[in-house]
Amino acid sequence: MRSVLAIVFLSLVPSAAVFGADAAAVQGAVRSWIRAHERDVLREFADVLAIPNLASDGPNIRRNAEHIAAMLARRGIATRLLDGEGGPPVVYGERAVPGARRTVVIYAHYDGQPVDPAKWTSPPWKPVLRDGPLEAGGREVALDAAPTGPEWRIYGRSAGDDKAPIVALAAAIDALQAAGIAPTVNLKLFLEGEEEAGSPHLQAVLEKNKERLRADAWLLCDGPVHQTRRPQVFFGARGVTDVEITLYGPARALHSGHYGNWAPNPAVALAHLVAGLRDTDGRIQIAHFYDDVRPLTPAEREALASVPDVDAELRRELALAVTEAGGARLAERILLPALNLRGLESGAVGERAANAIPTEARASIDFRLVPDQTPARVRERVEAHLRAQGYAITYETPSLDARRAQPKLVRLAWGSGYPPARTDMGSPFARALVAVTGEAAGGPVVRMPTLGGSVPMHLFVETFGVPVVGLPIANHDDNQHAADENLRLQNLWDGTAAFASVLARLGEEWR
Amino acid sequence: MRSVLAIVFLSLVPSAAVFGADAAAVQGAVRSWIRAHERDVLREFADVLAIPNLASDGPNIRRNAEHIAAMLARRGIATRLLDGEGGPPVVYGERAVPGARRTVVIYAHYDGQPVDPAKWTSPPWKPVLRDGPLEAGGREVALDAAPTGPEWRIYGRSAGDDKAPIVALAAAIDALQAAGIAPTVNLKLFLEGEEEAGSPHLQAVLEKNKERLRADAWLLCDGPVHQTRRPQVFFGARGVTDVEITLYGPARALHSGHYGNWAPNPAVALAHLVAGLRDTDGRIQIAHFYDDVRPLTPAEREALASVPDVDAELRRELALAVTEAGGARLAERILLPALNLRGLESGAVGERAANAIPTEARASIDFRLVPDQTPARVRERVEAHLRAQGYAITYETPSLDARRAQPKLVRLAWGSGYPPARTDMGSPFARALVAVTGEAAGGPVVRMPTLGGSVPMHLFVETFGVPVVGLPIANHDDNQHAADENLRLQNLWDGTAAFASVLARLGEEWR
Repeated sequence: MRSVLAIVFLSLVPSAAVFGADAAAVQGAVRSWIRAHERDVLREFADVLAIPNLASDGPNIRRNAEHIAAMLARRGIATRLLDGEGGPPVVYGERAVPGARRTVVIYAHYDGQPVDPAKWTSPPWKPVLRDGPLEAGGREVALDAAPTGPEWRIYGRSAGDDKAPIVALAAAIDALQAAGIAPTVNLKLFLEGEEEAGSPHLQAVLEKNKERLRADAWLLCDGPVHQTRRPQVFFGARGVTDVEITLYGPARALHSGHYGNWAPNPAVALAHLVAGLRDTDGRIQIAHFYDDVRPLTPAEREALASVPDVDAELRRELALAVTEAGGARLAERILLPALNLRGLESGAVGERAANAIPTEARASIDFRLVPDQTPARVRERVEAHLRAQGYAITYETPSLDARRAQPKLVRLAWGSGYPPARTDMGSPFARALVAVTGEAAGGPVVRMPTLGGSVPMHLFVETFGVPVVGLPIANHDDNQHAADENLRLQNLWDGTAAFASVLARLGEEWR
Repeated sequence: MRSVLAIVFLSLVPSAAVFGADAAAVQGAVRSWIRAHERDVLREFADVLAIPNLASDGPNIRRNAEHIAAMLARRGIATRLLDGEGGPPVVYGERAVPGARRTVVIYAHYDGQPVDPAKWTSPPWKPVLRDGPLEAGGREVALDAAPTGPEWRIYGRSAGDDKAPIVALAAAIDALQAAGIAPTVNLKLFLEGEEEAGSPHLQAVLEKNKERLRADAWLLCDGPVHQTRRPQVFFGARGVTDVEITLYGPARALHSGHYGNWAPNPAVALAHLVAGLRDTDGRIQIAHFYDDVRPLTPAEREALASVPDVDAELRRELALAVTEAGGARLAERILLPALNLRGLESGAVGERAANAIPTEARASIDFRLVPDQTPARVRERVEAHLRAQGYAITYETPSLDARRAQPKLVRLAWGSGYPPARTDMGSPFARALVAVTGEAAGGPVVRMPTLGGSVPMHLFVETFGVPVVGLPIANHDDNQHAADENLRLQNLWDGTAAFASVLARLGEEWR
């Protein structure tokens, strides 16, 4: 392994490369390289987006890992697939830099959220380039067209979440190499393949590779930049867990005339159950749910106060007349736990609706957790709430006899989840990162005490005890987790510039 | 037309036919004819079940009408298709009987409920014969197999609701003719093609053909027999109306981490809206909803008291630990209005669930009405209820600007519906019908003040002012309105015997 790395460095960092280039030199070189290579970067992006990437789809998720490993290896990164300990492989890479004092691990994930292809304008794994967002009438253009504006988008599952950082980092390496600018930090790469499935094997992989992954800091590249389109760094992330809830009605669907009003309707019971979990203002009605919420520190309050207010613009963009919690700011709301009803399903609506009492009703919920909540505690409290309402809980599909015996029977299927995390906003690494990303952005970056979304930050904090900070590059309006996911091209270019600054400048500022 | 009918009678009612055969002779002849012709009847049934029969499917619904008209014409019924006045054609037939003093119109419908093919074990319009119900492990047998037991079933959309009476009536005509037994009533047939779509053009068709349809009584052949499998006649039917409810969330699906807790979740709002419409015990929470419910007459109370109690057995069969309204009897419950939640849909559940805030949420509701409720009044009260909760109501898909302007916006799409009806349980026709159907059943029939389901009985009552009574033949466990709809073969044979008794005996008993 060592000898391979050594050979790589010889070819990668020619003796003429500048170590410790200044901010202006780095940005000038990278931005002009990008202008000359936009189509090359997009071609590489489209290739990686074309591979279906559900963590549960074994053969395809492995194809993603192998494809990405080859991308990195072509750039002289010593790359290998780490055993996923039961999950998809982790794409691991490393690149030591002679003279660098610090080592940073960059994390991203190459798997994507489930898709409902019927809702997509173009198939989720057929990358499509458009000359603007779909909502603004963006038209499809050839994949090898030369972009003419910042608002062009590339559509495909994981365009934003989370293949963009992988492609941007690769482009940043190319740009620096072309300019003869040397990195100033040793780089390790850790690209996960089951983040959207809740990272159930991540802890085992980190433990197993603890030595290999030793570093001075982790950089988590996931999530969106600020809604102002200004870059942001985040110092925490909400945890997550989820549950599928099923209620049962009659053993067979019944004519609503002959039995309506007598046979219990499970969809009605579900509506009552769900309405009892939270109000329409987002307030969770489960007893003691907020007991574990840790107060903000003064530094977090100060950072929060400086976060730009984008609520009015977001409401307009999202066609919302009001927001939950009486108009409280988005930046504040994501510091609290959330119960999101991600799906309801029972019987049928519209053209397919029949006058029948459904046999079952299902709800799907995801929870976002903040320090010091844990998935196990959330589960306990939800189950206590349901039991207090008279529900008997089962974790398997109940038999008809069980349904005959239990007046209120609920099936719960909990997903795996993970707790939230927050790290120190004042560490030397954090300050250096804020500085160098600000150089790339040409102005101050937004410092968020926490990301609203979830990344398994807590595992890195707990396993390695080093600073862990988030650096997202995707646009906020990328439809991540939904149909027509996309990346705004200017975010790809800005992300490339940010990674170049991290590689070339972080070692200088990190003192 | 007249001359055609005259020729038909010559061939149909040979001079040797017996007019006024007694009950034993009729039942003996018919039951032995059935035993010899089961496979012929099933073949004819399968042919008519194989034609897709959604009222909205113009070409196919017409194929049904033409196929059924040909079936009747083959039996010497003077048949024609009446213009549907904008809806599917009505299959009309008539057969005058020399010497008959009374004329009865038999009503059934040949259209079926919408289907969700994914939920069916075999395709809805591919008739399949089984040697028992699917729930009891009934195995598929060849369509031309000779049935060996009463529990065999034929599966297909409208097997029970409502093609069975059409096939049974045709078989009864064949059986009587083979036995040389003459009918004792003039027969008219009125077979509708859009009952499951709410019969929006029925009133116009009845008005247009008022003279042609003049008769002494109507017999509505729709719905199921009693759950004891004893025949029943019904003297009323619940009315029906329905509404599709849509609530709106963000203009695009949002990541539940970055926006959960801030962007309103339409599925949560829908759960609260639905929970506010009715409780889990079936009690409708809409103000003044029960104001129009007419009290029962003494005769109706007496009939109700004599209805066999099947609740415990039904609970077991349907795997229900409890029923709504604290265990009140089914027969009583269907005398009240019902609000049935027939569907809920938002986001996705299970494997397809993504951590996103849905853009909209939909509920589909059907209402069952009792005298003196009307669909218009129900609509008024539902809309007043929603407005009282702060909802602005729209009937079209709202623009994004409308969504920006209205904090609580609901889209309603009302289906057409019709009011309930009840008729006199003591009319000579009603008494005669109870008598002759009892002869066919070999025991007393169940007299129901109302059918829980809906048939547009009110239109016949209002248009013609003659007795209108219901005579269903389908089994109660036929999955009507749901997947795997079926007819129990013994119900087909018993229904054939009942129709034979009506044709051959009603004129004698009706005094």
